Amino acid sequence: MNYVITKLLYEGKAKKVYETNCQDVVVIEYKDDATAFDGTKRGIINNKGIVNNLVSNYFFKILESNKIPTHFIEQIDERKTAVKKVQIIPVEVIVRNIAAGSLCKRLGLEEGAILKRPILEFCYKNDALRDPQVNQYHILALELATEDEIKKIEEYSFKINDVLRNYLKQVNIDLIDFKLEFGRYKGEIILADEISPDTCRFWDVATKEKLDKDRFRRDLGNVEEAYMEILRRLGLDKKVNKFNSELKGE
Amino acid sequence: MNYVITKLLYEGKAKKVYETNCQDVVVIEYKDDATAFDGTKRGIINNKGIVNNLVSNYFFKILESNKIPTHFIEQIDERKTAVKKVQIIPVEVIVRNIAAGSLCKRLGLEEGAILKRPILEFCYKNDALRDPQVNQYHILALELATEDEIKKIEEYSFKINDVLRNYLKQVNIDLIDFKLEFGRYKGEIILADEISPDTCRFWDVATKEKLDKDRFRRDLGNVEEAYMEILRRLGLDKKVNKFNSELKGE
Ligand SMILES: Nc1ncnc2c1ncn2[C@@H]1O[C@H](COP(=O)(O)OP(=O)(O)O)[C@@H](O)[C@H]1O
Ligand SMILES: Nc1ncnc2c1ncn2[C@@H]1O[C@H](COP(=O)(O)OP(=O)(O)O)[C@@H](O)[C@H]1O
Ligand SMILES: [Mg+2]
Ligand SMILES: [Mg+2]
Repeated sequence: MNYVITKLLYEGKAKKVYETNCQDVVVIEYKDDATAFDGTKRGIINNKGIVNNLVSNYFFKILESNKIPTHFIEQIDERKTAVKKVQIIPVEVIVRNIAAGSLCKRLGLEEGAILKRPILEFCYKNDALRDPQVNQYHILALELATEDEIKKIEEYSFKINDVLRNYLKQVNIDLIDFKLEFGRYKGEIILADEISPDTCRFWDVATKEKLDKDRFRRDLGNVEEAYMEILRRLGLDKKVNKFNSELKGE
Repeated sequence: MNYVITKLLYEGKAKKVYETNCQDVVVIEYKDDATAFDGTKRGIINNKGIVNNLVSNYFFKILESNKIPTHFIEQIDERKTAVKKVQIIPVEVIVRNIAAGSLCKRLGLEEGAILKRPILEFCYKNDALRDPQVNQYHILALELATEDEIKKIEEYSFKINDVLRNYLKQVNIDLIDFKLEFGRYKGEIILADEISPDTCRFWDVATKEKLDKDRFRRDLGNVEEAYMEILRRLGLDKKVNKFNSELKGE
């Protein structure tokens, strides 16, 4: 279908969201802007928007084929995708397989420690409060979601972990952890936002090399290369060619 | 029974725990020492140990009669009680009815805000990590408790909230929030530690006056008087007489 962008609804840290001529549909545009540590660190990762758009759409299609309902409709161009307009549930879901990032400090774990069971965490999406960790009871008391919604969100999140973890293993990537957002669409909970190197930790299985936004967060260098490597592992690098020959230096 | 103290097992911030001639039984001795803010603030609250011993035992007996299994066996003297020796689960359970303390800052709530539903929180009992908030998945991954144990602990905690809230309402006290510890005893989960003005927030229903350790934490004055007032409301002040006439200035 031909969705016509009518107005910028929201500009976030990494994406813009546009209204379209269809009231149930918004267009997401992926930017190259990168932020970390609650927005205190800022920078640009060249072509990040293109990579994240492709990678996220690719994962969402895999998830759809595994019976996870998502907001994905269709890609519009290299940085833009049409998605179902949801009412975002202001709760971020984090799923962790291996200890990394804030968890290590919080629980005194070594980075890389294998968790005996995946850990699911909720954060209240609230910049002023710096996205505090919450549990299901906080979510119910604050009326951010209902009991049934929380149950669905947990169920989907663990399933997404299984599907993506198995998939990524085949291309020699360990899925360390990732962040999800869900929304309400016509009375149902569906997966929204993005799944990309911005929102996941990906480590090379053999070398443990980080192939995600931690390269930016921690100034590890080769940031753009890491994003491109994810594209390559997923076999999506040829696709970019179609949109953006500059990426390959042509 | 006559339990004979054989050895000091552990001295904590507020209590001492002694081994006895019976291997399944320890004696808890309540001290007047008070600490707050992860032990950074320290002081003495005169007769606190006597009040907490009486109050805690009183609540534990009420809970037992409401089918909550507890460690309580029998009071030995004004500061000492014989309890079942448990393997403490290193998780503190906090139940909240009204927003107060750390929750307000964390979630941007006014102190005194009525929560639409009681909130249950878990903290990993670990001084070095400053008792970080955790959820059931952290507890499982760290193998602090099993799924069945967590379920039992949640069920008991909400039931304890109902019983104590209703009970305290009758003596014009609002139960704002409280902290519990559970332990394993002969394969079962039972309530351990204490329930007292040290571990609860109690507000006078009419005046909202604080009758708990917040008077010490926040230097509100009349700390000893608040602990004594709880004793009076529960009708336990006459009991103290028996042990300690000094308390009443005789
Ligand atoms: N399908 C959707 N419908 C409506 N809003 C969405 C959808 N998917 C994601 N969003 C929201 O769009 C915004 C995306 O922009 P982003 O730069 O990630 O924002 P933020 O700075 O809040 O993280 C987020 O607020 C996200 O919750
Ligand atoms: N029934 C019990 N059996 C064994 N240990 C217990 C029991 N009840 C409470 N405890 C433990 O005894 C100690 C009580 O001392 P306290 O001063 O409260 O310690 P802390 O400074 O660790 O809070 C705590 O570590 C508590 O977990
Ligand atoms: Mg975002
Ligand atoms: Mg204690």
